[in-house]
Amino acid sequence: MDKTIGIFGGGQLGRMMAQAALPLNIQCVFYEANTDCPSAALGPIFSSKDNCLKSFIQSADVFSLEFENTPLNEVDTLLADEKNIHPPRTALAIAQNRLSEKNLFKRLDIPVAPFLAVDNLEDIHSAVDKLGLPIVLKTAMGGYDGKGQFVLRSEDQILQAWDELGDAKHLIAESFVEFSREVSIIAVRGQDGDVKTWPLAENHHHQGILSHSIVPAPNSDDLQPIAQEYITRLLNHLDYVGVLTLELFVTPQGLYANEMAPRVHNSGHWSIEGAICSQFENHIRAVAGLPLGSTAFISPTVMINIIGKHPNIADVLSLEGVHLHLYNKSERAGRKLGHITLMPKDPTQLTTLCQKLAKILPEPLALTEDMTI
Amino acid sequence: MDKTIGIFGGGQLGRMMAQAALPLNIQCVFYEANTDCPSAALGPIFSSKDNCLKSFIQSADVFSLEFENTPLNEVDTLLADEKNIHPPRTALAIAQNRLSEKNLFKRLDIPVAPFLAVDNLEDIHSAVDKLGLPIVLKTAMGGYDGKGQFVLRSEDQILQAWDELGDAKHLIAESFVEFSREVSIIAVRGQDGDVKTWPLAENHHHQGILSHSIVPAPNSDDLQPIAQEYITRLLNHLDYVGVLTLELFVTPQGLYANEMAPRVHNSGHWSIEGAICSQFENHIRAVAGLPLGSTAFISPTVMINIIGKHPNIADVLSLEGVHLHLYNKSERAGRKLGHITLMPKDPTQLTTLCQKLAKILPEPLALTEDMTI
Repeated sequence: MDKTIGIFGGGQLGRMMAQAALPLNIQCVFYEANTDCPSAALGPIFSSKDNCLKSFIQSADVFSLEFENTPLNEVDTLLADEKNIHPPRTALAIAQNRLSEKNLFKRLDIPVAPFLAVDNLEDIHSAVDKLGLPIVLKTAMGGYDGKGQFVLRSEDQILQAWDELGDAKHLIAESFVEFSREVSIIAVRGQDGDVKTWPLAENHHHQGILSHSIVPAPNSDDLQPIAQEYITRLLNHLDYVGVLTLELFVTPQGLYANEMAPRVHNSGHWSIEGAICSQFENHIRAVAGLPLGSTAFISPTVMINIIGKHPNIADVLSLEGVHLHLYNKSERAGRKLGHITLMPKDPTQLTTLCQKLAKILPEPLALTEDMTI
Repeated sequence: MDKTIGIFGGGQLGRMMAQAALPLNIQCVFYEANTDCPSAALGPIFSSKDNCLKSFIQSADVFSLEFENTPLNEVDTLLADEKNIHPPRTALAIAQNRLSEKNLFKRLDIPVAPFLAVDNLEDIHSAVDKLGLPIVLKTAMGGYDGKGQFVLRSEDQILQAWDELGDAKHLIAESFVEFSREVSIIAVRGQDGDVKTWPLAENHHHQGILSHSIVPAPNSDDLQPIAQEYITRLLNHLDYVGVLTLELFVTPQGLYANEMAPRVHNSGHWSIEGAICSQFENHIRAVAGLPLGSTAFISPTVMINIIGKHPNIADVLSLEGVHLHLYNKSERAGRKLGHITLMPKDPTQLTTLCQKLAKILPEPLALTEDMTI
C-alpha cells in the first residue's frame, strides 16, 4: 500500500471511505469502540475501549474521521505527535458546537434563522420574547437525527423543554423557519485549495431520520450557485481539506443554513454511482493530497435509506437500475442498515422505481407508493 | 454477513469480485499460494501451499474462481463435500483444453478457424498439408497472454516449433485467421437461467498482453446480436452460472471464436463504472443465487491496463473522468498492476483523454499519442 489513513470511527461512512481508498492502494485503519463494526471488513480496528489510541496513531500516515463528535483531546494527541488530520481541528471544534457554528455562518454572511444562546430557564423566556414563537431549542453540543431538540410552540411548554434538554447546560434557541424543503450541498477542498461541489440534494425525513435524497434537487438551478458560494466561503475560511456538508432550508426569503457536518454525508451516498467521482473517493483523494475528481453527476438519482429492518434482497435487486449498499449491521429500530441508489438508464423511470421500492421496503419511511419526483 | 463465497485464486479479479460482494453483505475468502496477494485486503487467504484446501472448503457456502486453470481435483474435493461451484466443473474442464473448447464451438455452430490436434512432429507436417501456412500452434492446456504459442510461417520452422512447444505433448494447430480486430463478449447467466450480455469490447494488444479495450466496440451494431447468440448458446449448453467471456476475431467471413474464459475478464473491467451493473457484481449475484443487474452501458469508455510500472498517481488522477484501480502489486515487467477506466462526462473527449494518458503512462503499450477512437 502507498499510504495508510487512520479514521476516527468505524461505521458505514468509514466502510465506504475505505472501499473508495482501496483501488488507490490506500489502506484505512479505524479507531472505534466496537471491533465488529461495519468498517472491520476493510481494515484493522484499534479499539477505543482498550486504550489503543497511541498504536492507532502510530499505524497511519495521516488521519480523518467519519464521526463529527470525535473527541478533541484525541485529535490533540495526534497533533502532539506531529501527525496531520483533515479536516482541521478548528472545523471539528466549530461543528461540535451549534452556537459556534451559527456564529461562523453569521460572520461569513451565510443567512441563518435568528438565534440566541440559552444557558438557563430565564434565557428561554427571554428568547421567546425576542424571537417569538415557535422556536426550536437544541443542545449546543451532541444530538443527531432529531435527538436533543424541542420545538417550543407555546409558553406553557417552557418548563417541559428545560426539563428535557436542560441537563445539557448549553442550548441554542432558533426561530422556527418556515421552509418548503431541506437541501444539502456537499463540497470537497484539496490540499492545493481546489474546491469542487456536487449538485444539491433534496432531503426527505421521517421522524428526524433521512428517508431519501433526490439528486439533483428538483428546480434547484437558481439555488445551486448560492449554496456553492456559501460552502466555498466556509471551506476557504477554515482552510479545510476534505469533504464538508452544509444543510440548508429553502425558505421564501432564500436559503438558510441549518448546520454543517465536517465529513462525508448520508445525502451524498448517491455519488458512488451517480457522480463521476464520489464523495468518498474525493475525501480520500483530498486527505491523501491527491488531485480531486470531477463532481459532475452522471444521471439523476434517488438514494433511499434502509432503516431498522432489512428488505428481501432478491426483491430489491430484481428492480432495474438499483444499487444496494448494505453495512453489515444487525437490525434495530431507527438504525441505518444500508442504502439503495436508484439510477435507471432512463431517468424518467425514477418515479416508477421509487413506487415499486416503497412496496418492497419494510420501513419505507417517507417513500410512498403514490410519490412523484 | 449473509453468505460466504470461496474463490479459487486471490489476484486482482478476486479482489474486484470481493469489492463488489461487500455492499451485498457477501464475504469472500480465497484459496491462493501467496497470502500477500491482491485479494488479501478483502478477506482471509487460505494458503494452497499449506494444504489448507479442507479448511477453505469448510469456510464458505458456495464457490467460484478467478483462475481458469484451477485444478480439477481441487474442484472434485469440494464437490465430494456436497458444496457447489459456479461456473460448473464441465465448463472449467473444457476451458482448460483448447481442443475440447474448439470442438464445443464447432458442435454449437460457432464459427472457428479450421484446426487439428497435434500430438507429434508428424502431426505438424500433416497439419501444414491440410490447413496450409501460416498456422498457429498452441499448447492444448496452459499458456496465457500469448505464451505457449508459435506462429508457423514456413515449413523450415517446424522443428523449432516442436522444440519450443513439444514438451506439452498435446497441441492444437489452427489456420492463421486474417482478422481486422479482436473483440470480446462478456455475458452472465443466473441460477434461474436468465442471461444478460454486456456490449462488445474492442481489444488492443501489445506483445500478447491486453493494452486497452474500447467499449462499446466501434461499428459493432451488426456484430453484437451475433456474438450474443454465440455466447448464449455456450451458457445454456453448459448450464453455466456466472460470468463467461468469449474472445472473437472480426474477419471478412464474419466473427470467429478464438477462446473462452470461464470467469470475469480483463476486457470487462470497464463495466465497474461504465455499466449499470459490473461483471464483478453480476458474477457475485449469479453465484449467490440473486437476480442479475442490468448490463446496459452508461457511457462509452476506454479501459487501459497499467503494466510493469506504476505511473505517477497524481498525474493520472488530474485527468477529468479517470477511474484508477490499483491491485497492490509490486512492479515487474509484463505484470498487470492496475487499470484505468476513462469515462468523461462528454464522451467526445475520449480520444483526447487517451492521448494525454499515453504521455503519462510509463508503459503505454498500444496506446499512442496520435490515436483516435
